[in-house]
Amino acid sequence: MTIHPIDIIRHKRDSLTLTDAEIETFVRAVVDRTISDAQIGAFLMAVWLRGLNAQELATLTRAMRFSGEVFDSSPLNAFAVDKHSTGGVGDKTSLLIAPIVAAAGFTAPHKLAVPMISGRSLGHTGGTLDKLETIPGFRTQLSLKEFADVIAQCGASIVGQTPSLVPADRILYALRDHTGTVESPNLICASIMSKKLAAGLNGLVLDVKTGSGAFMSRYEDSQHLARLMVATGEAAGTRTAALLTSMDEPLGRFSGNWIEVWECVDILKGIRHPMSADLIELSNILAGWMLFLGDCVDSPETGAALADEMLQSGAAYQSWLAMVKLQGGDTSTFDDPAAHHKPTATRILTADRSGYLAGMDCAEVGWAVQRLGAGRTRPGDPVSAHAGIEMHAKLGTWIEAGQPLVTLFSEDAALLDEPASMLRSTLLLLDTPSIRQPLIREIITAPAKN
Amino acid sequence: MTIHPIDIIRHKRDSLTLTDAEIETFVRAVVDRTISDAQIGAFLMAVWLRGLNAQELATLTRAMRFSGEVFDSSPLNAFAVDKHSTGGVGDKTSLLIAPIVAAAGFTAPHKLAVPMISGRSLGHTGGTLDKLETIPGFRTQLSLKEFADVIAQCGASIVGQTPSLVPADRILYALRDHTGTVESPNLICASIMSKKLAAGLNGLVLDVKTGSGAFMSRYEDSQHLARLMVATGEAAGTRTAALLTSMDEPLGRFSGNWIEVWECVDILKGIRHPMSADLIELSNILAGWMLFLGDCVDSPETGAALADEMLQSGAAYQSWLAMVKLQGGDTSTFDDPAAHHKPTATRILTADRSGYLAGMDCAEVGWAVQRLGAGRTRPGDPVSAHAGIEMHAKLGTWIEAGQPLVTLFSEDAALLDEPASMLRSTLLLLDTPSIRQPLIREIITAPAKN
Repeated sequence: MTIHPIDIIRHKRDSLTLTDAEIETFVRAVVDRTISDAQIGAFLMAVWLRGLNAQELATLTRAMRFSGEVFDSSPLNAFAVDKHSTGGVGDKTSLLIAPIVAAAGFTAPHKLAVPMISGRSLGHTGGTLDKLETIPGFRTQLSLKEFADVIAQCGASIVGQTPSLVPADRILYALRDHTGTVESPNLICASIMSKKLAAGLNGLVLDVKTGSGAFMSRYEDSQHLARLMVATGEAAGTRTAALLTSMDEPLGRFSGNWIEVWECVDILKGIRHPMSADLIELSNILAGWMLFLGDCVDSPETGAALADEMLQSGAAYQSWLAMVKLQGGDTSTFDDPAAHHKPTATRILTADRSGYLAGMDCAEVGWAVQRLGAGRTRPGDPVSAHAGIEMHAKLGTWIEAGQPLVTLFSEDAALLDEPASMLRSTLLLLDTPSIRQPLIREIITAPAKN
Repeated sequence: MTIHPIDIIRHKRDSLTLTDAEIETFVRAVVDRTISDAQIGAFLMAVWLRGLNAQELATLTRAMRFSGEVFDSSPLNAFAVDKHSTGGVGDKTSLLIAPIVAAAGFTAPHKLAVPMISGRSLGHTGGTLDKLETIPGFRTQLSLKEFADVIAQCGASIVGQTPSLVPADRILYALRDHTGTVESPNLICASIMSKKLAAGLNGLVLDVKTGSGAFMSRYEDSQHLARLMVATGEAAGTRTAALLTSMDEPLGRFSGNWIEVWECVDILKGIRHPMSADLIELSNILAGWMLFLGDCVDSPETGAALADEMLQSGAAYQSWLAMVKLQGGDTSTFDDPAAHHKPTATRILTADRSGYLAGMDCAEVGWAVQRLGAGRTRPGDPVSAHAGIEMHAKLGTWIEAGQPLVTLFSEDAALLDEPASMLRSTLLLLDTPSIRQPLIREIITAPAKN
């Protein structure tokens, strides 16, 4: 029996449960463009308002995952594992985790592979690809064949989406963006999970941000999304865990593009700046979970310890150098990364009073970074390699009046004023420190199977 | 402050009340095509699911009404009044009401004008324009200037929508049709009322059908729609009344195109076929309400009596002849309308048992008429002038086995079989008559103002 798109829309509108065939027909029609944009818009709004049950969500995710080419990880003969973050400010954990897990995977009892398909800066958050592309020569657009070759040789590769992977998501995402249907937990889950699972993952660790710098600021919303993603991953046969982590201040020392690479190179070389402590801790914990899902270690805690060993021993740095070289990057820039940071305009904001750094709107900090030139206003806009900020204090620390709070970098002096005033307004100095949330708020895993 | 379409969508999605400025911006964007089809689809679905309050609906209707050119009825120096039906089977009251009210309007204390902008056959229901166009030479596409001239000369004119009138509705209706957002009472109300009010009406009588032949078969739905339309009309300063009428069987004797003109010409000439009794009664009641709203009579009942007088005296027929001539129609066809009925294929269905005609799915009867060629499958398709049916009995009458039930007409013998079997299945003969609903179920008017 032929299924008509209008009936699928009507059924969801009327709160009926969609059948697998209906959802598959919808996704195919999206890719074939046999359903109109108006119909897609109406369907997305019906899903936003009526929701999806677990079965519908798993089916939508699967249909989207297989809407185009998929990456076949089986020839790697390894446990394919990845990490995905819902987006934060100064969140550069991917640059550390990929080499950590690649390094540990070669030594661990089970061989691991990290096929990481990443994204670009979006809104107030940074993008892994934009950061990597500040390394001269580094190619983020590899064919699936090249992607597999890099992973086979060094254990990890970080690339951008190809046009042939998950085409349904590209079309749906573009339409969600201007139809007010972005913030649907179901649609977010299907979008993220379809793309991640298309990389042929056996394991996936999700870093779901919560707090003022996350896309979802309400804790319950992040928790709900995390649960949906874990259930959807497990339903697809991928071992999945989600960590709800605090995003109340930028992660680590720098937020920007090249400066984030610099911070990671320092860490990979064993240089531990005090401001990078939270970044190192979170990277080790996430990598530890990946090692645990891949059965390389007995517990996530042992995994985190092994991850830190990979950093301290220099093994992760060797994996990083190998990966960057295989993707065409010039590793000589890592000899003195500070020397390659070339903002043409710099401004230091100092504390206008003494006090504890008690709070900030972390998304506003992200927007300041974007306005400095590090992010983009529209998809496809160029980003500045050298724009960004360096934070000089973490939440809860005491700062004397006149001490530096944050340094702003830009490639255009005219771009400094607005971000400076945004940062000045949002960085709150008080007589008493406020309560800080722990870095890891909650860990969500699949219910044990009986 | 600039209002962005996406924010309007989001606000409705989140159940907020839209401001007048938001609704006006949306409608302007629809007409300017600065909002995408996907956004319109999402908005329509949000309205379908979240609804509109009375103020939002009045504003949407007003914004749509003024989205293009409007007909200025004030130079007519008359009370402009019209009737609108939500669509039925064999419903040809417009062809009688326009000349009745035109005739009464010239003799009544207040001069009346009937600027009637009509539609075409849709689904299982007939269309006034399709019927009129079977009169040789009759032009339904007049300019607004020609429209005004015809009304000025004979008191009434029946024309089709011009491209410049209510463009917002044309765009929205086409998108509603394939996004599953047709059956929204709010959107139906805005669509109907924006088009009707664009004709510059001082008064409007709505014939809201209920029963198996209506678009809305649930009584409460028809009632709700009627209340919305009355409130919206009154909010726009137009005196509005709605009659909820039964559509459980075809109205009158014939359902088709030319045969409906024939039936009306007979009535206008004073020939009263027994099968036309319900048609005459409903036409007089609706016209009576129009005369009452226009302050020509003291009560709707007096109005109905005056309407019948216009039929019996031949005054309505004179108005009809004048209108048809002014719109280019050849009135010589009315001398012997039966002679102009030229189906090439005819079939009579007889009762296969004796019994009361106890029920039918009236929409199914309408679909049979459409399949015979009288209606269209897609907008723009041609319709047959001579296809249709003649009913030989009303609900509740006793029929002997072998007596004719219904006669089918078509211009293609191959088109007879399917409608014949549809009619055979749906026309129900039983030993006891079922309970018949009264023709007028309920009258809805605006609450009296204190």
